[in-house]
Amino acid sequence: MAPVQECLISAPGKCILHGEHAVVHGKVALAVSLNLRTYLRLQVTSTAEVSISLPNIDTFLSWDVSVLKPLLSHCKGECRSSTELDTELVRKLREFTAIADGSTDTRSMAVLAFLYTYLCVFAHSEVLPSLKVCVWSELPTGAGLGSSAAYSVCVSAALLTARGTISSPLTQSQETARWSEQELELINNWAFQGEKIIHGNPSGVDNAVGTWGGFLRYHAGKITPLSRVPTLRILLTNTKVPRSTKLLVSRVKDRINQYPSVMAPVLESVDAVSQICECTLAEMATEGASAKHYSTLEDLIDINQHHLNVMGVGHTSLNTLCQVTLTHGLHSKLTGAGGGGCAITLLTPETDESVVRDVMEELKQVGFDCWETSIGAPGVLMHSPTSLTHNVLDILTKY
Amino acid sequence: MAPVQECLISAPGKCILHGEHAVVHGKVALAVSLNLRTYLRLQVTSTAEVSISLPNIDTFLSWDVSVLKPLLSHCKGECRSSTELDTELVRKLREFTAIADGSTDTRSMAVLAFLYTYLCVFAHSEVLPSLKVCVWSELPTGAGLGSSAAYSVCVSAALLTARGTISSPLTQSQETARWSEQELELINNWAFQGEKIIHGNPSGVDNAVGTWGGFLRYHAGKITPLSRVPTLRILLTNTKVPRSTKLLVSRVKDRINQYPSVMAPVLESVDAVSQICECTLAEMATEGASAKHYSTLEDLIDINQHHLNVMGVGHTSLNTLCQVTLTHGLHSKLTGAGGGGCAITLLTPETDESVVRDVMEELKQVGFDCWETSIGAPGVLMHSPTSLTHNVLDILTKY
Repeated sequence: MAPVQECLISAPGKCILHGEHAVVHGKVALAVSLNLRTYLRLQVTSTAEVSISLPNIDTFLSWDVSVLKPLLSHCKGECRSSTELDTELVRKLREFTAIADGSTDTRSMAVLAFLYTYLCVFAHSEVLPSLKVCVWSELPTGAGLGSSAAYSVCVSAALLTARGTISSPLTQSQETARWSEQELELINNWAFQGEKIIHGNPSGVDNAVGTWGGFLRYHAGKITPLSRVPTLRILLTNTKVPRSTKLLVSRVKDRINQYPSVMAPVLESVDAVSQICECTLAEMATEGASAKHYSTLEDLIDINQHHLNVMGVGHTSLNTLCQVTLTHGLHSKLTGAGGGGCAITLLTPETDESVVRDVMEELKQVGFDCWETSIGAPGVLMHSPTSLTHNVLDILTKY
Repeated sequence: MAPVQECLISAPGKCILHGEHAVVHGKVALAVSLNLRTYLRLQVTSTAEVSISLPNIDTFLSWDVSVLKPLLSHCKGECRSSTELDTELVRKLREFTAIADGSTDTRSMAVLAFLYTYLCVFAHSEVLPSLKVCVWSELPTGAGLGSSAAYSVCVSAALLTARGTISSPLTQSQETARWSEQELELINNWAFQGEKIIHGNPSGVDNAVGTWGGFLRYHAGKITPLSRVPTLRILLTNTKVPRSTKLLVSRVKDRINQYPSVMAPVLESVDAVSQICECTLAEMATEGASAKHYSTLEDLIDINQHHLNVMGVGHTSLNTLCQVTLTHGLHSKLTGAGGGGCAITLLTPETDESVVRDVMEELKQVGFDCWETSIGAPGVLMHSPTSLTHNVLDILTKY
């Protein structure tokens, strides 16, 4: 396939609709795409440089391609694998970028993942190409919303497209376009390597959601995209209460050990919630969404929020959030680790815009960040410039 | 046994510690005595009248004993039974007191139950005695706190004692005294007939708690007093939000039918909560209460409150209550039907009096009624006058 000179790409964030924590104990989780997206612009240049601009985290770096090439010397002509991490190359890149071994800060990890993917994808090119890459995201980082996966998916899709390994699917008349299933597999595999660099031992769910979008069933390490799903309007709220996922996971484990006869049925009940949700979503997609479907989704959200409280991962900030939204007839649950962090609020076709405005205003007054967005939207997309908002396009072209 | 000329008696209210609603679906419930008590003073007079004063509900009535005697004419010398309701006598009493057949208002029912017990207990006496009875209660009526049972237990104990059917257990030096197990059985049986008159089809739990006090396990219609139990300090709060128990019970049933796979495990989990609570209480009574015991009781309260929310019997007033108390480190759950109504808040030996004062103040400011009391206290008691507070004694002697 012909390499491209420029491309615009986006990938969604992710959140957990149901089954967070329960998934650690062998139950089903439903991971969904969150339509707060990460956008990437790639240009082929003639500067003999590779540059990356990450305005969200104030990171602007460039390297002479000539100094990058030697980093591949250990490769000995073997093909770089999209399914296994080249730990020797990661080590060399850490040395090259002077990132200390244990360091995991966002900037360092983003740079490492980018350079790794760039070198691997172009390892067998005659020359390493000169590229200018800018990535900007609507997603807050470190909030459990898959911002690193959305980044890795964008980088992977952009570099594979620039290399010509995968097609440039966008035709003249299209606003957005997606790749073939096989190409998405490749994007996902490379994005997973990026996630490994950033997170060490990721589940692969985040990059799968970033790649395929929609709803994914995650059970016992197996990821299955749901075939037909609706898009649901939601509010995504970040309480900004900091929490440690590791600590919360171990808190749930402790509680299960302390009260096994109480907690085992709760996990079962959460599993049933996920399964009913999955059936309801399938019905909505095939039969059309009814008020009854939305009422079921609301019930399930309320029930699971209570169950998560029983697991010990609630927080007063989340109680406040649920109370504020319920005052306006809207139903919310935490998403992800809990103990603060983020929550989703379901909007229905009947939810008035004035209600949405009022709720968002109230949540912001409490000190939360709040976005009106959707879940179940498409995964990685190639964009025409006109399909992006002025704001996004401005940022991507400015840096 | 010698009949007495005067006696002072009290019986506690009841609340449900765990298992409300779940008990309807075959699970265990823990009913406990609530140390908000109903007090009764009985005097034998020479007025040839029977009078009853119920200052709480502004009811002051008296009858010539000569007009009451003929109501027993259908009896034909057979013994009145303490275990079966004489529906013919109830019918006659309704006619006599001009209470319409369907009428169930508190005043009418209290009068009916009193006259019924009086006539039955003294049916085989030569003459019906002249009595003056005054009953005053700390319990709010119609709040699911067993006020009618506490009333029936007091009436039953007082009349049986006055008749000499049971002993007058109080000796000179005692402040309070209890009856023998066999006598308590009799008190409970007669109180149950009173409850039948007032409620139609009562479970028998309320009068059992009023009679025996402490903690009772209620499962599949069987009532078992727990042998060794501690007394626990609590706050009892009445949100005063009116609710229909019948409606709430059917709401839970509907939810179970709608989401059986979600709700069946929740009921199982509630059952486990009751069982762990029972074990913990037994440990506290035998080993002495530790901070760990209280921490477990708090966990169970929180968990069950969430489960009751999942059953659909929560209410914003109860959320407010839980939030107010949790702000001060105290744990609360609804007790009884939910949907408003009453809640209990556990106090621990570590709970500072200033905290109790502040919480009560805040709850009252929200518009709730709030009492500092205890659960697990003794059942029906005979009192010396000096064992009553001035306030209670004043009321009982004033009317």
